[in-house]
Amino acid sequence: MASEVAAPAAQVSPAELTEYLDKIFPQMHAQGRAFFIDEILPGKAIVRLKAGDSHLRPGGTVSGPSLMGLADYAAYVVLMGNIGLHALAVTTNMNINFLRKAEAGDMIATCRILKGGKRLVVMDCEIVREGSDDLIAHATATYSIPPASFKG
Amino acid sequence: MASEVAAPAAQVSPAELTEYLDKIFPQMHAQGRAFFIDEILPGKAIVRLKAGDSHLRPGGTVSGPSLMGLADYAAYVVLMGNIGLHALAVTTNMNINFLRKAEAGDMIATCRILKGGKRLVVMDCEIVREGSDDLIAHATATYSIPPASFKG
Amino acid sequence: MASEVAAPAAQVSPAELTEYLDKIFPQMHAQGRAFFIDEILPGKAIVRLKAGDSHLRPGGTVSGPSLMGLADYAAYVVLMGNIGLHALAVTTNMNINFLRKAEAGDMIATCRILKGGKRLVVMDCEIVREGSDDLIAHATATYSIPPASFKG
Amino acid sequence: MASEVAAPAAQVSPAELTEYLDKIFPQMHAQGRAFFIDEILPGKAIVRLKAGDSHLRPGGTVSGPSLMGLADYAAYVVLMGNIGLHALAVTTNMNINFLRKAEAGDMIATCRILKGGKRLVVMDCEIVREGSDDLIAHATATYSIPPASFKG
Repeated sequence: MASEVAAPAAQVSPAELTEYLDKIFPQMHAQGRAFFIDEILPGKAIVRLKAGDSHLRPGGTVSGPSLMGLADYAAYVVLMGNIGLHALAVTTNMNINFLRKAEAGDMIATCRILKGGKRLVVMDCEIVREGSDDLIAHATATYSIPPASFKG
Repeated sequence: MASEVAAPAAQVSPAELTEYLDKIFPQMHAQGRAFFIDEILPGKAIVRLKAGDSHLRPGGTVSGPSLMGLADYAAYVVLMGNIGLHALAVTTNMNINFLRKAEAGDMIATCRILKGGKRLVVMDCEIVREGSDDLIAHATATYSIPPASFKG
Repeated sequence: MASEVAAPAAQVSPAELTEYLDKIFPQMHAQGRAFFIDEILPGKAIVRLKAGDSHLRPGGTVSGPSLMGLADYAAYVVLMGNIGLHALAVTTNMNINFLRKAEAGDMIATCRILKGGKRLVVMDCEIVREGSDDLIAHATATYSIPPASFKG
Repeated sequence: MASEVAAPAAQVSPAELTEYLDKIFPQMHAQGRAFFIDEILPGKAIVRLKAGDSHLRPGGTVSGPSLMGLADYAAYVVLMGNIGLHALAVTTNMNINFLRKAEAGDMIATCRILKGGKRLVVMDCEIVREGSDDLIAHATATYSIPPASFKG
């Protein structure tokens, strides 16, 4: 089912976007760098969380907030990588289903744009543990792009 | 991303499932038959709503509750078609994003199982208007299978 | 917790709003009148579904789509009753949790505005069966008001 | 609308629960203590996030993942404080609407149990900035209690 964005207006490379985000959003890495941009594709992005001890909850599995943070970051990346460097775009809604437990390791979020409007961008994200096809979590996120968005 | 169910235990044909549902759930068609099962595949089902005047809202577009009804029915069908004839399975959560307006016509829901547990089954559904790839709506649904589910 | 709207700009009575909706949205009652507006209050509305046989699912309980339809209608009513007669306002997101089963009878939705912006209005709805305090369902809904909304 | 739990079976004090959580969930405070339990009431809990620089996103407002983490923690607290010390209870679904921006400061989550079942517990959380009644965010969360939950 083709839900990719037809003509990505402002696609940037993972390295360019990482450099940009490091500048405007240094808090992301306040506790060490854990999030990495693997790929930016038309209408899509792949983002990685190297989940270590600090991301675990009782029982030794990756915590809900860590996975929510990954989905939210991946949605931000696919938006910035495809629609433009809207630093001030904000999440207005996120819904996430936690499907399977995962131990510490690399969590891979594949996030795609379901609808890229001028004001609202809706995305979904599938999260797996590297090396497995089993879904750990599935999220949908809506971002709102402010009218006078500063574009870096 | 492979999220299909590995070994569909109880796959039935669209005609068999339609006959079964007509028997246990005649209210579905109280206002005339509008919902049709197109295909039942491993971990997946395709269900159709022939949206007519009674499914429209002000502005002439297919109403939210009609699309929610389609997503809910498609989720029920993929569960029954793949996991077993759990007539008493009930929706515990549904989240739906309405992405584009659609005029009356055939709405096609493609619903797949994200996680098929013994108690909870999580699915997502993509809805398009026949002949277009643009997503009209995207839903995730969770069904709960009661412990002593009667299996027809 | 005060989340009411401070100054409802366009509050109308249940009778006025019912008359208006009958005109612009006659499909609501195509299968007989089942939805009724009980009260419109500041930032709040109470709407009733007289759930009969056609609203039941296997097992004899009120169906998910019937309750989603009630929540969606109640959200529309609280928006129209408080923010203005935006007939073309559309649902962009709904999330609903089904908490308890309910047999046929009067379902009462109490819906309040969590945030009434110019473009997006977010509401939540609690649904009980008349005479009981137990929640049957809880929903949150977001409506988008189109820029050039016709106001009847 | 009375949705409180009738007879909280296992209510504990904020100090007792804090001590217990410090033992089983030390990662919560790996970056310094930011989450505090203010009150545990029947069917309800009030939890505080002292949002500092590390919780901000571009634009200087409290980040979505910080608020999701607060809602998730508050839901865990109301469950543990009312239903029992189910350390291994896990989030299965969270839906959150971000309603207004908030600058750094104390975020207060009031979380109540909508349905406290033996297996699934559904809660909602309202988040405000201390001293204001305006909702910053509204979340619903579902926790699943594993069959053989260790109770500390």
